[in-house]
Amino acid sequence: MTDLGGALGRVKLASTASPADAAPLRDAARLSFNQATAERASLPDVIEACARAGVPGISLWRHKLAETGVERTAKLLRDAGLWVSSVCRGGMFPALTAAERAARIDDNRRAIDDAATLGAEVLVLVCGAAPDRDIGAARSMVADGIAAIAPYAAECGVRLGIEPLHPAFAAERSCITTMREARLIAAQYDASNVGVVVDVYHVWWDPERAEEIARLGDRIAGYHVNDWLVPVKNVLMNRGMMGDGVIELRRIRGEIERAGYMGPIEVEIFNESIWERPLDELVRLTKERFVEVS
Amino acid sequence: MTDLGGALGRVKLASTASPADAAPLRDAARLSFNQATAERASLPDVIEACARAGVPGISLWRHKLAETGVERTAKLLRDAGLWVSSVCRGGMFPALTAAERAARIDDNRRAIDDAATLGAEVLVLVCGAAPDRDIGAARSMVADGIAAIAPYAAECGVRLGIEPLHPAFAAERSCITTMREARLIAAQYDASNVGVVVDVYHVWWDPERAEEIARLGDRIAGYHVNDWLVPVKNVLMNRGMMGDGVIELRRIRGEIERAGYMGPIEVEIFNESIWERPLDELVRLTKERFVEVS
Repeated sequence: MTDLGGALGRVKLASTASPADAAPLRDAARLSFNQATAERASLPDVIEACARAGVPGISLWRHKLAETGVERTAKLLRDAGLWVSSVCRGGMFPALTAAERAARIDDNRRAIDDAATLGAEVLVLVCGAAPDRDIGAARSMVADGIAAIAPYAAECGVRLGIEPLHPAFAAERSCITTMREARLIAAQYDASNVGVVVDVYHVWWDPERAEEIARLGDRIAGYHVNDWLVPVKNVLMNRGMMGDGVIELRRIRGEIERAGYMGPIEVEIFNESIWERPLDELVRLTKERFVEVS
Repeated sequence: MTDLGGALGRVKLASTASPADAAPLRDAARLSFNQATAERASLPDVIEACARAGVPGISLWRHKLAETGVERTAKLLRDAGLWVSSVCRGGMFPALTAAERAARIDDNRRAIDDAATLGAEVLVLVCGAAPDRDIGAARSMVADGIAAIAPYAAECGVRLGIEPLHPAFAAERSCITTMREARLIAAQYDASNVGVVVDVYHVWWDPERAEEIARLGDRIAGYHVNDWLVPVKNVLMNRGMMGDGVIELRRIRGEIERAGYMGPIEVEIFNESIWERPLDELVRLTKERFVEVS
């Protein structure tokens, strides 16, 4: 294992392997490199770096797509032979005025168009925050927003993936904070239309984690890995490379696979010290840690 | 309402009052000033400041008790006419070795002694972290630890109050992260022996908040108020004065009171800019905001 040193140096193998843990991954066949892990790099550069390192899949963010253009990105991906696991992000439904909520639904339709053009299976929904002392009202706006876009997504062959975010983000990014809550919204639709994206950073702490993952079953629309660093400083940027934190990654993948999900696994890491690394080194390290500890 | 300005300046009344909200508090009769809100001050100084400001109750931390002495503190409290709502904190049960776990149980017994000497109704349990990639094992150690001290607490007439902490603290302070999880542990004991402490900072985001508070009923062993500031910087020190953040305080107090809890309400705020304020001003502001917006 590469010794990262410094802030990333805390690598300790789990002392508590269990029969419930997944078997080690043998290769990187299921690896999708989420572009947020290389936020400082351009989309064409990330596509090339993935191709060079033998990373087979990628996940795309819309602010990067806007820079490069969706059609040009689709061609670059075809030329490089990469598949796309998801487009990030739709969602952000709650807003104070009806006009603003309608504008956001329009924007979600454009995100669905982008995902369809790129052949992405899933549009990840970060549902939106609860800023104004009424988290219940925000949750209703999320349910309404998903209802407004689900038929169009089905028409376009794009699956919506509700991503519950860690409760630390409830006031700023997503009022949908648990897998259970996401599952109850998704359950109103066909599983092929609306699913749930499970990111270990957001759900590792959940006392009902194993049961909820089992209940999700074929609703699981994506699986994201990274790690929870200790001590926590900035909770948004506290994600680490797999193996550098405290998350029981093999245990959770065991739960995910027993639930029946064998699709792409995205590596998504928001962290300044990760972003500062040279791109090729970062992609290689991601692949190595993916196989060794995820 | 006092205008705090700067980082504490974001005061906006809830735009969404609801019949589910509690009626305004008419006075500070239920107010308990948690000493953590004035971490920079000595315990004797806080006792005097509360007495001067007409704050009737106080909650004590053991590191401050150790400085002043438990017997001397008891006398100061009697002289000032203050009641004690709780002692913080017991708990911290998970540890790598059996010897260390036993030492922590001994320390919890001393905390129960302190609470009994001070006439505190409740010993607040911050249960301990899940640092080593096995949060399930940590949870078992918490259950074992509470089982080891509950009979002694009953003997001493001190109620144990399990405080679920926000999931952002799971890796460093408490693997018990939801009211539901705390309730299921407490349910193994008589309600007068083991209850649950509800702190708005830790539970405001929970999609099952209202239902869980109702289910707690006479298990509620304490209620803490403060606020969740936006944007989040340091998640440990992100608490604000009531009214400065996004928590629907009256809504939650409505849920708490419908569940039957009419006991002390503690104000507990960990925040450097709060700690820097002059003590008398801070105690006055706490009382004012308690009555106006809690």
